[in-house]
Amino acid sequence: MSDKTKILNVELGDKSYPIYIGIDLLSMKSLFVDQIQGRQVMIVTNKTIAPLYLDKLTSILDGFNVQSVILPDGEEFKTLETLNKVFDALLEAKFDRTSTLIALGGGVIGDITGFAAASYQRGVGFIQVPTTLLSQVDSSVGGKTGINHELGKNMIGAFYQPKAVIIDVNTLDTLSNQEFSAGMAEVIKYGLLGNADFLSMLEANIESIMARKKDLIIEVIFNCCQDKARIVELDEFEKGKRALLNLGHTFGHGIENAFGYGNYLHGEAVSIGMVMAAKLSKDEGNLSHEETLRVESILSKADLPISINKTIDSETLITAMSLDKKSIDGKIRLVLLKSLGDSYLTDSYSNENFMKVVNSFCQ
Amino acid sequence: MSDKTKILNVELGDKSYPIYIGIDLLSMKSLFVDQIQGRQVMIVTNKTIAPLYLDKLTSILDGFNVQSVILPDGEEFKTLETLNKVFDALLEAKFDRTSTLIALGGGVIGDITGFAAASYQRGVGFIQVPTTLLSQVDSSVGGKTGINHELGKNMIGAFYQPKAVIIDVNTLDTLSNQEFSAGMAEVIKYGLLGNADFLSMLEANIESIMARKKDLIIEVIFNCCQDKARIVELDEFEKGKRALLNLGHTFGHGIENAFGYGNYLHGEAVSIGMVMAAKLSKDEGNLSHEETLRVESILSKADLPISINKTIDSETLITAMSLDKKSIDGKIRLVLLKSLGDSYLTDSYSNENFMKVVNSFCQ
Repeated sequence: MSDKTKILNVELGDKSYPIYIGIDLLSMKSLFVDQIQGRQVMIVTNKTIAPLYLDKLTSILDGFNVQSVILPDGEEFKTLETLNKVFDALLEAKFDRTSTLIALGGGVIGDITGFAAASYQRGVGFIQVPTTLLSQVDSSVGGKTGINHELGKNMIGAFYQPKAVIIDVNTLDTLSNQEFSAGMAEVIKYGLLGNADFLSMLEANIESIMARKKDLIIEVIFNCCQDKARIVELDEFEKGKRALLNLGHTFGHGIENAFGYGNYLHGEAVSIGMVMAAKLSKDEGNLSHEETLRVESILSKADLPISINKTIDSETLITAMSLDKKSIDGKIRLVLLKSLGDSYLTDSYSNENFMKVVNSFCQ
Repeated sequence: MSDKTKILNVELGDKSYPIYIGIDLLSMKSLFVDQIQGRQVMIVTNKTIAPLYLDKLTSILDGFNVQSVILPDGEEFKTLETLNKVFDALLEAKFDRTSTLIALGGGVIGDITGFAAASYQRGVGFIQVPTTLLSQVDSSVGGKTGINHELGKNMIGAFYQPKAVIIDVNTLDTLSNQEFSAGMAEVIKYGLLGNADFLSMLEANIESIMARKKDLIIEVIFNCCQDKARIVELDEFEKGKRALLNLGHTFGHGIENAFGYGNYLHGEAVSIGMVMAAKLSKDEGNLSHEETLRVESILSKADLPISINKTIDSETLITAMSLDKKSIDGKIRLVLLKSLGDSYLTDSYSNENFMKVVNSFCQ
């Protein structure tokens, strides 16, 4: 293990686990072996990632009964049907309750694999090996797993913690610029919602980060995972503070639901959603105009959209937002900003201000 | 609440819950209201139970937004597809994460509803209202939920505890004799696996129990739930002692898998499975011939089968058994008896004895 490798522990009692962040960790056999209980290992990946990293991961697991299942790539396949393909593979291989699942891929693979691990024989072990920036800084940490339903995203799932998260930043080499930017939306989110120092660090180094300088990327991912871990430790099941991680997500999920899969990447929709949240926060009297410009500026520098560049009416967007899980008894709850680096969950914002912001983003 | 109502607490820390056992509990509004967090209630039931009890339960929940989903009746519908019907209903009703599911029916309804509650928005509340003897004494207690896969029973699910179990013994009035007997298989199981006094009590009162005398039935259900609760408290996730509850089930699941749904009720297959386990225990030198006859006798008096009355070859049965979850790394683990009322989990029995018993039940 290179001395540049960083290790972070997520402290959740008997569900605690380590996060490793470093260069070429996919070659570090012991990192994996230490987390595998039995002899049966199922690698779950997709058609894009399999040709890049599946052989490499399989080869270091010699001595285990390693099987793999290769799913189609894309959020539109995060369904019950795809989940069932994982169960098919496990049962066809006659894997028992000592088996371990490895999620090798982005957020969709991690979410499906985690839920499969939570549900197969009522729970087997799993390891997250996130290969996109988005999943490395967000979805692979914290134990949220699940699939979409045609009536809403992430509606079916489980809170289920991995045995470990192994983040090999070399996998970012094969990520498209668009996917890298989408990940940056979640990176910037941590700055906005609770870490003003980190936001300043991002603003100061955005060009080098976008150039994917590895030492800096490791630092950035470590910061994000640390912020997320501290929140998850306080509120594993999202009864309170964890909801702050949804900054930009209720608007963002609305945009994703309304336009359907393939129009906006998750991170892109979240980017627009964070701008909407910032503008509503300004109208609620919390942020200055200059601060909202700072939000737009850092997102733009990360090559992210800050407005909806397609036609949608307000009613469609609001209906799509109200399907979001954060909605309680029909009311739309939102994460808003008190200042840059300080957020809160509320449903007591002015409806007039809310409509004004929604209307200004719709046409 | 009648003073005949018995209350038992399952002690699982912050997941603890009460079990109420009594007459006409479906009229006791407060029992339900105390366990419902929000205003949204989804009753999940089936086509057989809905005409009998759905209106009654709905009517006492006035003041709540009560919806219902009526599933087809039968183990063959304990599938991912049927589970998805529950998600459809929840999302069409726009139910949020404060909603409560009520399982009104037998074991299949309880298992599907519990897994739906575990998975909907990563977990909402649910109440078990078991209406069959089998589910009252067994599946409604302990938090095992799940569905079948075409390659094996109960392969997909969650450990997820209900907020309460409400057992109204009046619902047994509408149960067929065959279903009642199937429930008695699980009742007798508790005697055999760990409670010799209870076994003697059953032997002494079997005629009155089969005549469904309510005071006696309440006593019997309370004993079973108590035995199960004490085991679940020690081993919620079936790492050890809980596996004893599977006495007769590995053989039984093999019989169910091999013949397919509709041939044997679960309890009937377990009855045969317990006789097989008893005979293997005898051949292993633990039980006397007289004790195996006692096992056959009490099961017969409960109108349960003690042999396979259909054609099956040994190999088919063993293959079907090895798909069972209790199998670790391909070896079939079994619960055997040290004596009547004392059981143990083992995979070190003689293979010759095992084959002898299997062959004697197959043809």
